[in-house]
Amino acid sequence: MILIADNLRITNPVIASALDKRDAEPIVKMVRRLVKNGAHAIDINTGPLNRDPEGKMTFMVRTVQDVTQLPLVLDTVNPKAVAAGVSAADRPVMINGFSLEPHKLSSILPIAKTNNCRIIGYLLRPDGHVPSGAAERMNIAVELYAAFKRGGLEDDRLIIDPVVVPVSWQDGVRQNQEILDVLMTLPDLLGFSVKTVAGISNLTAGGKDRVKCRLLQQAYLAMLAACHLDMVLCDALSPEVVRCFSACQALLQPDIFTWESLPSD
Amino acid sequence: MILIADNLRITNPVIASALDKRDAEPIVKMVRRLVKNGAHAIDINTGPLNRDPEGKMTFMVRTVQDVTQLPLVLDTVNPKAVAAGVSAADRPVMINGFSLEPHKLSSILPIAKTNNCRIIGYLLRPDGHVPSGAAERMNIAVELYAAFKRGGLEDDRLIIDPVVVPVSWQDGVRQNQEILDVLMTLPDLLGFSVKTVAGISNLTAGGKDRVKCRLLQQAYLAMLAACHLDMVLCDALSPEVVRCFSACQALLQPDIFTWESLPSD
Repeated sequence: MILIADNLRITNPVIASALDKRDAEPIVKMVRRLVKNGAHAIDINTGPLNRDPEGKMTFMVRTVQDVTQLPLVLDTVNPKAVAAGVSAADRPVMINGFSLEPHKLSSILPIAKTNNCRIIGYLLRPDGHVPSGAAERMNIAVELYAAFKRGGLEDDRLIIDPVVVPVSWQDGVRQNQEILDVLMTLPDLLGFSVKTVAGISNLTAGGKDRVKCRLLQQAYLAMLAACHLDMVLCDALSPEVVRCFSACQALLQPDIFTWESLPSD
Repeated sequence: MILIADNLRITNPVIASALDKRDAEPIVKMVRRLVKNGAHAIDINTGPLNRDPEGKMTFMVRTVQDVTQLPLVLDTVNPKAVAAGVSAADRPVMINGFSLEPHKLSSILPIAKTNNCRIIGYLLRPDGHVPSGAAERMNIAVELYAAFKRGGLEDDRLIIDPVVVPVSWQDGVRQNQEILDVLMTLPDLLGFSVKTVAGISNLTAGGKDRVKCRLLQQAYLAMLAACHLDMVLCDALSPEVVRCFSACQALLQPDIFTWESLPSD
Protein backbone atom coordinates (compact mmCIF):
# COMPACT_ATOMS: atom_id res chain seq x y z
CA MET A 1 0.00 0.00 0.00
CA ILE A 2 1.15 3.52 -0.83
CA LEU A 3 0.58 6.42 1.56
CA ILE A 4 -0.29 9.66 -0.25
CA ALA A 5 -0.24 12.64 2.10
CA ASP A 6 -3.34 14.82 1.80
CA ASN A 7 -1.94 17.62 3.97
CA LEU A 8 -0.67 20.01 1.31
CA ARG A 9 -4.01 21.61 0.60
CA ILE A 10 -5.39 25.02 -0.07
CA THR A 11 -7.98 24.62 2.69
CA ASN A 12 -5.07 24.96 5.12
CA PRO A 13 -4.82 28.77 5.57
CA VAL A 14 -1.03 28.59 5.94
CA ILE A 15 -0.72 26.89 2.57
CA ALA A 16 -3.30 29.18 0.96
CA SER A 17 -1.42 32.25 2.11
CA ALA A 18 1.95 30.82 1.04
CA LEU A 19 0.57 30.11 -2.41
CA ASP A 20 -0.91 33.60 -2.70
CA LYS A 21 2.39 35.22 -1.75
CA ARG A 22 4.50 32.72 -3.67
CA ASP A 23 6.25 32.09 -0.36
CA ALA A 24 7.98 28.70 -0.60
CA GLU A 25 8.96 28.37 3.03
CA PRO A 26 5.70 27.13 4.64
CA ILE A 27 5.25 24.67 1.77
CA VAL A 28 8.81 23.39 2.07
CA LYS A 29 8.36 22.99 5.81
CA MET A 30 5.15 21.04 5.36
CA VAL A 31 6.65 18.78 2.68
CA ARG A 32 9.69 18.04 4.87
CA ARG A 33 7.37 16.95 7.68
CA LEU A 34 5.38 14.74 5.33
CA VAL A 35 8.54 13.09 4.02
CA LYS A 36 9.83 12.58 7.56
CA ASN A 37 6.54 10.99 8.59
CA GLY A 38 6.82 8.38 5.87
CA ALA A 39 4.62 9.68 3.06
CA HIS A 40 5.21 7.85 -0.23
CA ALA A 41 3.68 10.54 -2.41
CA ILE A 42 2.45 14.13 -2.02
CA ASP A 43 -1.00 15.24 -3.13
CA ILE A 44 -0.87 18.89 -4.22
CA ASN A 45 -4.42 20.06 -3.61
CA THR A 46 -4.67 23.57 -4.94
CA GLY A 47 -8.44 23.77 -5.25
CA PRO A 48 -9.93 25.20 -8.48
CA LEU A 49 -7.39 28.07 -8.82
CA ASN A 50 -9.57 30.62 -10.54
CA ARG A 51 -6.79 33.19 -10.79
CA ASP A 52 -3.47 32.34 -12.45
CA PRO A 53 -3.93 28.56 -12.40
CA GLU A 54 -0.80 27.91 -14.47
CA GLY A 55 1.45 30.13 -12.40
CA LYS A 56 0.21 28.86 -9.08
CA MET A 57 0.38 25.15 -9.92
CA THR A 58 3.83 25.61 -11.48
CA PHE A 59 4.99 27.31 -8.30
CA MET A 60 3.59 24.52 -6.14
CA VAL A 61 5.09 21.71 -8.21
CA ARG A 62 8.52 23.34 -8.38
CA THR A 63 8.51 24.14 -4.69
CA VAL A 64 7.60 20.57 -3.72
CA GLN A 65 9.94 18.80 -6.10
CA ASP A 66 12.82 20.95 -4.95
CA VAL A 67 12.69 19.28 -1.53
CA THR A 68 11.68 15.71 -2.28
CA GLN A 69 12.06 12.92 -4.79
CA LEU A 70 8.60 11.61 -3.93
CA PRO A 71 5.95 11.20 -6.62
CA LEU A 72 3.47 14.06 -6.98
CA VAL A 73 -0.30 13.98 -7.34
CA LEU A 74 -1.93 16.98 -9.01
CA ASP A 75 -5.25 17.55 -7.25
CA THR A 76 -7.40 20.19 -8.92
CA VAL A 77 -10.47 20.38 -11.14
CA ASN A 78 -8.82 23.09 -13.24
CA PRO A 79 -7.48 21.60 -16.50
CA LYS A 80 -5.14 24.56 -17.04
CA ALA A 81 -3.57 23.94 -13.66
CA VAL A 82 -3.26 20.22 -14.36
CA ALA A 83 -1.54 20.83 -17.69
CA ALA A 84 0.80 23.38 -16.15
CA GLY A 85 1.63 21.01 -13.29
CA VAL A 86 2.44 18.17 -15.66
CA SER A 87 4.72 20.47 -17.65
CA ALA A 88 6.47 21.84 -14.58
CA ALA A 89 7.10 18.42 -13.07
CA ASP A 90 10.49 16.79 -13.45
CA ARG A 91 8.95 13.34 -12.85
CA PRO A 92 5.85 11.35 -13.80
CA VAL A 93 2.85 12.71 -11.93
CA MET A 94 -0.55 11.28 -11.11
CA ILE A 95 -3.61 13.35 -11.98
CA ASN A 96 -6.36 13.61 -9.35
CA GLY A 97 -8.67 13.16 -11.09
CA PHE A 98 -11.58 12.59 -13.43
CA SER A 99 -15.10 11.16 -13.25
CA LEU A 100 -18.13 10.81 -15.52
CA GLU A 101 -18.71 14.55 -15.18
CA PRO A 102 -18.66 15.69 -18.83
CA HIS A 103 -16.21 18.57 -18.36
CA LYS A 104 -13.72 16.26 -16.67
CA LEU A 105 -14.01 13.67 -19.42
CA SER A 106 -13.45 16.33 -22.04
CA SER A 107 -10.80 18.44 -20.36
CA ILE A 108 -8.90 16.45 -17.70
CA LEU A 109 -8.78 12.93 -19.11
CA PRO A 110 -7.10 14.02 -22.39
CA ILE A 111 -4.21 15.55 -20.40
CA ALA A 112 -3.52 12.11 -18.93
CA LYS A 113 -3.55 10.61 -22.43
CA THR A 114 -1.26 13.26 -23.93
CA ASN A 115 1.27 12.94 -21.13
CA ASN A 116 0.80 9.22 -20.40
CA CYS A 117 -0.01 10.01 -16.75
CA ARG A 118 -1.74 7.79 -14.26
CA ILE A 119 -5.11 9.28 -13.36
CA ILE A 120 -7.53 8.77 -10.50
CA GLY A 121 -11.10 8.04 -11.59
CA TYR A 122 -13.85 8.77 -9.08
CA LEU A 123 -16.95 6.60 -8.86
CA LEU A 124 -19.29 9.59 -9.05
CA ARG A 125 -22.44 10.19 -11.07
CA PRO A 126 -22.20 12.33 -14.22
CA ASP A 127 -23.66 15.19 -12.15
CA GLY A 128 -20.84 14.83 -9.59
CA HIS A 129 -23.03 13.37 -6.87
CA VAL A 130 -22.11 10.35 -4.80
CA PRO A 131 -23.82 7.11 -5.91
CA SER A 132 -26.32 5.49 -3.57
CA GLY A 133 -24.67 2.13 -3.03
CA ALA A 134 -22.57 -0.77 -4.26
CA ALA A 135 -24.64 -1.62 -7.35
CA GLU A 136 -24.55 1.95 -8.62
CA ARG A 137 -20.82 2.21 -7.89
CA MET A 138 -20.21 -0.92 -9.96
CA ASN A 139 -22.26 0.40 -12.87
CA ILE A 140 -20.37 3.65 -12.72
CA ALA A 141 -17.04 1.79 -12.60
CA VAL A 142 -17.94 0.00 -15.83
CA GLU A 143 -18.95 3.25 -17.51
CA LEU A 144 -15.91 5.09 -16.18
CA TYR A 145 -13.59 2.38 -17.48
CA ALA A 146 -15.29 2.50 -20.87
CA ALA A 147 -14.84 6.28 -21.01
CA PHE A 148 -11.22 5.85 -19.91
CA LYS A 149 -10.58 3.34 -22.70
CA ARG A 150 -12.25 5.62 -25.24
CA GLY A 151 -9.71 8.19 -24.08
CA GLY A 152 -7.03 5.85 -25.42
CA LEU A 153 -5.20 5.11 -22.19
CA GLU A 154 -3.62 1.83 -21.08
CA ASP A 155 -5.25 -0.05 -18.20
CA ASP A 156 -2.34 0.53 -15.84
CA ARG A 157 -2.90 4.30 -16.03
CA LEU A 158 -6.24 4.01 -14.20
CA ILE A 159 -6.62 4.23 -10.42
CA ILE A 160 -10.20 4.00 -9.17
CA ASP A 161 -11.42 5.91 -6.12
CA PRO A 162 -14.71 4.50 -4.76
CA VAL A 163 -15.38 7.75 -2.83
CA VAL A 164 -15.48 7.22 0.92
CA VAL A 165 -18.34 9.22 2.45
CA PRO A 166 -18.66 10.80 5.88
CA VAL A 167 -19.71 8.19 8.40
CA SER A 168 -22.14 10.76 9.80
CA TRP A 169 -24.20 10.79 6.60
CA GLN A 170 -27.56 9.16 7.00
CA ASP A 171 -26.43 6.12 5.02
CA GLY A 172 -22.69 6.65 5.59
CA VAL A 173 -22.06 3.42 7.48
CA ARG A 174 -23.77 1.32 4.85
CA GLN A 175 -22.07 3.16 1.98
CA ASN A 176 -18.59 2.73 3.41
CA GLN A 177 -19.27 -0.92 4.13
CA GLU A 178 -20.37 -1.43 0.55
CA ILE A 179 -17.18 0.27 -0.62
CA LEU A 180 -15.27 -2.62 0.92
CA ASP A 181 -17.24 -5.03 -1.29
CA VAL A 182 -16.74 -2.79 -4.32
CA LEU A 183 -12.96 -2.85 -3.79
CA MET A 184 -12.95 -6.66 -3.67
CA THR A 185 -15.14 -6.92 -6.76
CA LEU A 186 -13.54 -4.33 -9.07
CA PRO A 187 -10.83 -6.60 -10.53
CA ASP A 188 -13.42 -9.24 -11.52
CA LEU A 189 -15.82 -6.59 -12.74
CA LEU A 190 -13.31 -4.84 -15.02
CA GLY A 191 -11.32 -7.94 -15.91
CA PHE A 192 -7.92 -6.75 -14.75
CA SER A 193 -6.23 -5.95 -11.46
CA VAL A 194 -7.20 -2.29 -11.48
CA LYS A 195 -5.41 -0.16 -8.91
CA THR A 196 -7.47 1.60 -6.26
CA VAL A 197 -7.14 4.61 -3.99
CA ALA A 198 -9.31 5.95 -1.18
CA GLY A 199 -9.25 9.14 0.85
CA ILE A 200 -9.97 8.49 4.50
CA SER A 201 -9.97 12.01 5.94
CA ASN A 202 -13.46 12.45 4.49
CA LEU A 203 -14.69 9.52 6.58
CA THR A 204 -14.87 11.70 9.68
CA ALA A 205 -15.76 15.02 8.07
CA GLY A 206 -17.79 17.04 10.54
CA GLY A 207 -16.47 15.07 13.51
CA LYS A 208 -15.38 17.29 16.37
CA ASP A 209 -13.66 14.78 18.64
CA ARG A 210 -10.18 14.26 17.25
CA VAL A 211 -9.63 11.01 19.16
CA LYS A 212 -12.81 9.47 17.79
CA CYS A 213 -12.04 10.65 14.27
CA ARG A 214 -8.58 9.06 14.38
CA LEU A 215 -9.98 5.87 15.80
CA LEU A 216 -12.47 5.50 12.95
CA GLN A 217 -9.86 6.41 10.34
CA GLN A 218 -7.46 3.79 11.69
CA ALA A 219 -10.03 1.00 11.74
CA TYR A 220 -11.36 1.87 8.30
CA LEU A 221 -7.85 2.08 6.87
CA ALA A 222 -7.14 -1.47 8.03
CA MET A 223 -10.46 -2.61 6.57
CA LEU A 224 -9.61 -1.02 3.22
CA ALA A 225 -6.18 -2.63 3.36
CA ALA A 226 -7.77 -6.03 3.94
CA CYS A 227 -9.81 -5.41 0.79
CA HIS A 228 -6.62 -4.86 -1.21
CA LEU A 229 -6.62 -1.07 -1.46
CA ASP A 230 -3.45 0.00 -3.29
CA MET A 231 -3.09 3.63 -2.19
CA VAL A 232 -4.51 5.64 0.66
CA LEU A 233 -4.84 9.41 0.66
CA CYS A 234 -4.64 10.43 4.30
CA ASP A 235 -3.34 12.77 6.96
CA ALA A 236 0.37 11.93 7.06
CA LEU A 237 0.79 14.16 10.10
CA SER A 238 -1.48 12.02 12.26
CA PRO A 239 0.75 9.68 14.27
CA GLU A 240 -2.21 7.34 14.81
CA VAL A 241 -3.00 7.04 11.11
CA VAL A 242 0.66 6.59 10.16
CA ARG A 243 1.17 3.96 12.87
CA CYS A 244 -1.90 2.08 11.67
CA PHE A 245 -0.56 2.27 8.13
CA SER A 246 2.73 0.70 9.31
CA ALA A 247 0.83 -2.10 11.01
CA CYS A 248 -1.17 -2.76 7.84
CA GLN A 249 2.03 -2.91 5.84
CA ALA A 250 3.62 -5.32 8.33
CA LEU A 251 0.53 -7.55 8.18
CA LEU A 252 0.06 -7.52 4.43
CA GLN A 253 3.52 -7.51 2.95
CA PRO A 254 4.54 -10.93 1.71
CA ASP A 255 8.15 -10.69 2.84
CA ILE A 256 9.31 -11.76 6.26
CA PHE A 257 7.89 -9.94 9.24
CA THR A 258 10.20 -7.90 11.44
CA TRP A 259 9.21 -6.14 14.64
CA GLU A 260 11.63 -3.38 13.59
CA SER A 261 9.30 -2.30 10.79
CA LEU A 262 6.86 -0.97 13.38
CA PRO A 263 6.98 2.28 15.34
CA SER A 264 7.32 1.70 19.08
CA ASP A 265 5.78 4.92 20.27
CA MET B 1 -19.27 -8.60 16.09
CA ILE B 2 -19.12 -10.17 19.54
CA LEU B 3 -16.18 -9.54 21.86
CA ILE B 4 -15.22 -12.63 23.86
CA ALA B 5 -12.71 -11.82 26.62
CA ASP B 6 -9.74 -14.20 26.67
CA ASN B 7 -8.41 -12.91 29.99
CA LEU B 8 -9.82 -15.47 32.39
CA ARG B 9 -7.16 -18.07 31.79
CA ILE B 10 -5.14 -20.51 33.80
CA THR B 11 -1.89 -19.18 32.35
CA ASN B 12 -2.50 -16.09 34.49
CA PRO B 13 -0.87 -17.08 37.83
CA VAL B 14 -3.47 -15.13 39.81
CA ILE B 15 -6.28 -17.11 38.20
CA ALA B 16 -4.37 -20.40 38.51
CA SER B 17 -3.83 -19.85 42.22
CA ALA B 18 -7.45 -18.78 42.78
CA LEU B 19 -8.68 -21.93 41.05
CA ASP B 20 -6.35 -24.12 43.09
CA LYS B 21 -7.53 -22.60 46.36
CA ARG B 22 -11.16 -22.32 45.25
CA ASP B 23 -10.82 -18.62 46.03
CA ALA B 24 -13.58 -16.80 44.16
CA GLU B 25 -12.41 -13.27 44.80
CA PRO B 26 -9.67 -12.82 42.16
CA ILE B 27 -11.94 -14.43 39.58
CA VAL B 28 -14.88 -12.21 40.50
CA LYS B 29 -12.62 -9.15 40.33
CA MET B 30 -11.36 -10.13 36.90
CA VAL B 31 -14.86 -10.83 35.56
CA ARG B 32 -16.15 -7.50 36.84
CA ARG B 33 -13.35 -5.72 34.98
CA LEU B 34 -14.13 -7.63 31.79
CA VAL B 35 -17.81 -6.75 32.02
CA LYS B 36 -16.99 -3.11 32.70
CA ASN B 37 -14.69 -3.02 29.68
CA GLY B 38 -17.49 -4.13 27.39
CA ALA B 39 -16.92 -7.87 26.94
CA HIS B 40 -19.93 -9.62 25.41
CA ALA B 41 -18.92 -13.12 26.56
CA ILE B 42 -16.35 -14.67 28.90
CA ASP B 43 -14.01 -17.44 27.80
CA ILE B 44 -13.21 -19.69 30.77
CA ASN B 45 -9.83 -21.12 29.85
CA THR B 46 -8.93 -23.67 32.47
CA GLY B 47 -6.31 -25.59 30.51
CA PRO B 48 -6.46 -29.41 30.54
CA LEU B 49 -7.32 -29.72 34.28
CA ASN B 50 -5.65 -33.04 35.00
CA ARG B 51 -6.73 -33.10 38.63
CA ASP B 52 -10.40 -32.75 39.59
CA PRO B 53 -11.60 -31.42 36.21
CA GLU B 54 -15.29 -31.59 37.17
CA GLY B 55 -14.85 -29.82 40.50
CA LYS B 56 -12.63 -27.10 39.10
CA MET B 57 -14.74 -26.29 36.03
CA THR B 58 -17.89 -26.31 38.14
CA PHE B 59 -16.28 -23.86 40.55
CA MET B 60 -15.21 -21.59 37.69
CA VAL B 61 -18.58 -21.60 35.96
CA ARG B 62 -20.51 -20.94 39.19
CA THR B 63 -18.12 -18.19 40.24
CA VAL B 64 -18.38 -16.40 36.90
CA GLN B 65 -22.13 -16.69 36.46
CA ASP B 66 -22.68 -15.39 39.97
CA VAL B 67 -21.36 -11.99 38.87
CA THR B 68 -22.51 -11.65 35.26
CA GLN B 69 -25.33 -12.49 32.91
CA LEU B 70 -22.89 -12.71 29.99
CA PRO B 71 -22.64 -15.88 27.90
CA LEU B 72 -19.87 -18.30 28.87
CA VAL B 73 -17.39 -20.14 26.68
CA LEU B 74 -15.89 -23.35 28.09
CA ASP B 75 -12.30 -23.51 26.92
CA THR B 76 -10.59 -26.79 27.75
CA VAL B 77 -9.53 -29.97 25.97
CA ASN B 78 -10.77 -32.05 28.89
CA PRO B 79 -14.17 -33.61 28.06
CA LYS B 80 -14.94 -34.25 31.74
CA ALA B 81 -14.45 -30.55 32.46
CA VAL B 82 -16.59 -29.57 29.47
CA ALA B 83 -19.44 -31.83 30.56
CA ALA B 84 -19.24 -30.57 34.15
CA GLY B 85 -19.21 -26.96 32.95
CA VAL B 86 -22.27 -27.48 30.78
CA SER B 87 -24.09 -29.05 33.75
CA ALA B 88 -23.08 -26.31 36.16
CA ALA B 89 -24.11 -23.50 33.82
CA ASP B 90 -27.45 -21.77 34.32
CA ARG B 91 -27.41 -20.59 30.68
CA PRO B 92 -26.52 -21.90 27.23
CA VAL B 93 -22.73 -22.13 26.88
CA MET B 94 -20.43 -22.31 23.92
CA ILE B 95 -17.83 -25.11 23.83
CA ASN B 96 -14.29 -24.19 22.79
CA GLY B 97 -13.72 -26.41 20.97
CA PHE B 98 -13.18 -29.33 18.64
CA SER B 99 -11.14 -30.08 15.54
CA LEU B 100 -10.35 -33.07 13.32
CA GLU B 101 -8.19 -34.49 16.13
CA PRO B 102 -9.81 -37.93 16.72
CA HIS B 103 -10.12 -37.62 20.50
CA LYS B 104 -11.94 -34.30 20.16
CA LEU B 105 -14.32 -35.68 17.56
CA SER B 106 -15.09 -38.64 19.79
CA SER B 107 -15.21 -36.96 23.19
CA ILE B 108 -15.92 -33.21 22.88
CA LEU B 109 -18.24 -32.97 19.88
CA PRO B 110 -20.83 -35.39 21.37
CA ILE B 111 -21.18 -33.15 24.42
CA ALA B 112 -22.28 -30.32 22.14
CA LYS B 113 -24.81 -32.64 20.50
CA THR B 114 -26.21 -33.94 23.80
CA ASN B 115 -26.62 -30.45 25.21
CA ASN B 116 -27.41 -28.62 21.96
CA CYS B 117 -24.46 -26.26 22.56
CA ARG B 118 -22.74 -24.07 20.03
CA ILE B 119 -19.20 -25.30 19.49
CA ILE B 120 -16.06 -23.76 18.03
CA GLY B 121 -14.38 -25.87 15.35
CA TYR B 122 -10.70 -25.22 14.69
CA LEU B 123 -9.23 -25.48 11.22
CA LEU B 124 -6.41 -27.75 12.37
CA ARG B 125 -5.01 -30.96 10.91
CA PRO B 126 -6.05 -34.27 12.47
CA ASP B 127 -2.67 -34.28 14.25
CA GLY B 128 -3.44 -30.87 15.79
CA HIS B 129 -0.95 -28.98 13.66
CA VAL B 130 -1.70 -25.72 11.89
CA PRO B 131 -2.41 -26.09 8.15
CA SER B 132 0.02 -24.59 5.67
CA GLY B 133 -2.26 -22.15 3.88
CA ALA B 134 -5.65 -21.19 2.51
CA ALA B 135 -6.22 -24.27 0.34
CA GLU B 136 -5.52 -26.65 3.21
CA ARG B 137 -7.70 -24.61 5.57
CA MET B 138 -10.57 -24.85 3.07
CA ASN B 139 -10.17 -28.62 2.73
CA ILE B 140 -10.12 -28.95 6.49
CA ALA B 141 -13.22 -26.76 6.80
CA VAL B 142 -15.11 -29.11 4.47
CA GLU B 143 -13.96 -32.17 6.44
CA LEU B 144 -14.67 -30.51 9.77
CA TYR B 145 -18.19 -29.58 8.69
CA ALA B 146 -18.79 -33.14 7.48
CA ALA B 147 -17.65 -34.51 10.84
CA PHE B 148 -19.82 -31.94 12.60
CA LYS B 149 -22.87 -33.00 10.59
CA ARG B 150 -22.13 -36.68 11.28
CA GLY B 151 -22.27 -35.64 14.93
CA GLY B 152 -25.92 -34.75 14.32
CA LEU B 153 -25.75 -31.02 15.05
CA GLU B 154 -27.61 -28.20 13.34
CA ASP B 155 -25.62 -25.77 11.18
CA ASP B 156 -26.17 -22.84 13.53
CA ARG B 157 -24.31 -24.67 16.31
CA LEU B 158 -21.00 -24.43 14.44
CA ILE B 159 -18.53 -21.56 14.80
CA ILE B 160 -15.36 -21.93 12.77
CA ASP B 161 -11.98 -20.66 13.99
CA PRO B 162 -9.44 -20.37 11.15
CA VAL B 163 -6.52 -20.30 13.66
CA VAL B 164 -4.60 -17.04 13.56
CA VAL B 165 -0.85 -17.73 13.80
CA PRO B 166 1.93 -15.63 15.31
CA VAL B 167 3.03 -12.99 12.83
CA SER B 168 6.62 -13.83 13.76
CA TRP B 169 6.33 -17.34 12.30
CA GLN B 170 8.32 -17.78 9.14
CA ASP B 171 5.13 -17.77 7.06
CA GLY B 172 2.98 -15.95 9.62
CA VAL B 173 2.23 -12.89 7.51
CA ARG B 174 1.15 -14.98 4.54
CA GLN B 175 -0.92 -17.34 6.70
CA ASN B 176 -2.81 -14.55 8.41
CA GLN B 177 -3.43 -12.84 5.09
CA GLU B 178 -4.83 -16.07 3.69
CA ILE B 179 -7.08 -16.36 6.74
CA LEU B 180 -8.80 -13.17 5.56
CA ASP B 181 -9.59 -14.90 2.25
CA VAL B 182 -10.72 -18.04 4.06
CA LEU B 183 -13.18 -16.02 6.15
CA MET B 184 -14.67 -14.45 3.03
CA THR B 185 -14.92 -17.82 1.27
CA LEU B 186 -16.30 -20.06 4.05
CA PRO B 187 -20.02 -19.26 3.50
CA ASP B 188 -19.79 -20.15 -0.20
CA LEU B 189 -17.63 -23.16 0.54
CA LEU B 190 -19.99 -24.66 3.12
CA GLY B 191 -23.20 -23.40 1.57
CA PHE B 192 -24.53 -21.47 4.55
CA SER B 193 -23.60 -18.36 6.49
CA VAL B 194 -21.39 -20.19 8.98
CA LYS B 195 -20.38 -18.15 12.00
CA THR B 196 -16.70 -17.49 12.60
CA VAL B 197 -14.42 -16.63 15.51
CA ALA B 198 -10.74 -15.74 15.72
CA GLY B 199 -8.33 -15.24 18.59
CA ILE B 200 -6.06 -12.29 18.05
CA SER B 201 -3.82 -12.45 21.10
CA ASN B 202 -1.92 -15.26 19.40
CA LEU B 203 -1.08 -12.90 16.50
CA THR B 204 1.67 -11.26 18.52
CA ALA B 205 2.79 -14.26 20.60
CA GLY B 206 6.46 -13.82 21.41
CA GLY B 207 6.35 -10.06 20.83
CA LYS B 208 8.07 -8.11 23.57
CA ASP B 209 7.06 -4.54 22.70
CA ARG B 210 3.56 -4.06 24.05
CA VAL B 211 2.86 -1.01 21.89
CA LYS B 212 3.77 -2.86 18.70
CA CYS B 213 1.75 -5.90 19.71
CA ARG B 214 -1.36 -3.77 20.33
CA LEU B 215 -0.86 -1.95 17.07
CA LEU B 216 -0.80 -5.19 15.09
CA GLN B 217 -3.76 -6.61 17.00
CA GLN B 218 -5.83 -3.51 16.31
CA ALA B 219 -5.09 -3.45 12.59
CA TYR B 220 -5.67 -7.18 12.21
CA LEU B 221 -8.91 -6.99 14.17
CA ALA B 222 -10.25 -4.37 11.77
CA MET B 223 -9.13 -6.51 8.83
CA LEU B 224 -10.95 -9.55 10.25
CA ALA B 225 -14.02 -7.39 10.84
CA ALA B 226 -13.95 -6.26 7.21
CA CYS B 227 -13.97 -9.94 6.26
CA HIS B 228 -17.16 -10.49 8.25
CA LEU B 229 -15.74 -12.13 11.37
CA ASP B 230 -18.61 -12.74 13.82
CA MET B 231 -16.75 -13.09 17.11
CA VAL B 232 -13.32 -12.09 18.31
CA LEU B 233 -11.52 -13.68 21.23
CA CYS B 234 -9.22 -10.99 22.58
CA ASP B 235 -7.73 -9.14 25.51
CA ALA B 236 -10.69 -7.20 26.89
CA LEU B 237 -8.39 -5.38 29.29
CA SER B 238 -6.44 -3.72 26.48
CA PRO B 239 -7.89 -0.24 26.00
CA GLU B 240 -6.42 -0.12 22.50
CA VAL B 241 -8.02 -3.38 21.40
CA VAL B 242 -11.38 -2.48 22.96
CA ARG B 243 -11.32 0.97 21.36
CA CYS B 244 -10.55 -0.56 17.98
CA PHE B 245 -13.41 -3.00 18.50
CA SER B 246 -15.77 -0.07 19.16
CA ALA B 247 -14.62 1.63 15.98
CA CYS B 248 -15.20 -1.57 13.98
CA GLN B 249 -18.69 -1.83 15.41
CA ALA B 250 -19.45 1.79 14.57
CA LEU B 251 -18.24 1.25 11.01
CA LEU B 252 -19.95 -2.06 10.38
CA GLN B 253 -23.26 -1.88 12.15
CA PRO B 254 -26.11 -1.16 9.78
CA ASP B 255 -27.99 1.17 12.09
CA ILE B 256 -27.37 4.88 12.23
CA PHE B 257 -23.94 6.06 13.25
CA THR B 258 -23.55 8.07 16.45
CA TRP B 259 -20.34 9.62 17.68
CA GLU B 260 -21.51 8.70 21.19
CA SER B 261 -20.93 5.01 20.50
CA LEU B 262 -17.19 5.63 20.50
CA PRO B 263 -14.85 6.05 23.46
CA SER B 264 -13.27 9.50 23.56
CA ASP B 265 -10.15 8.61 25.51
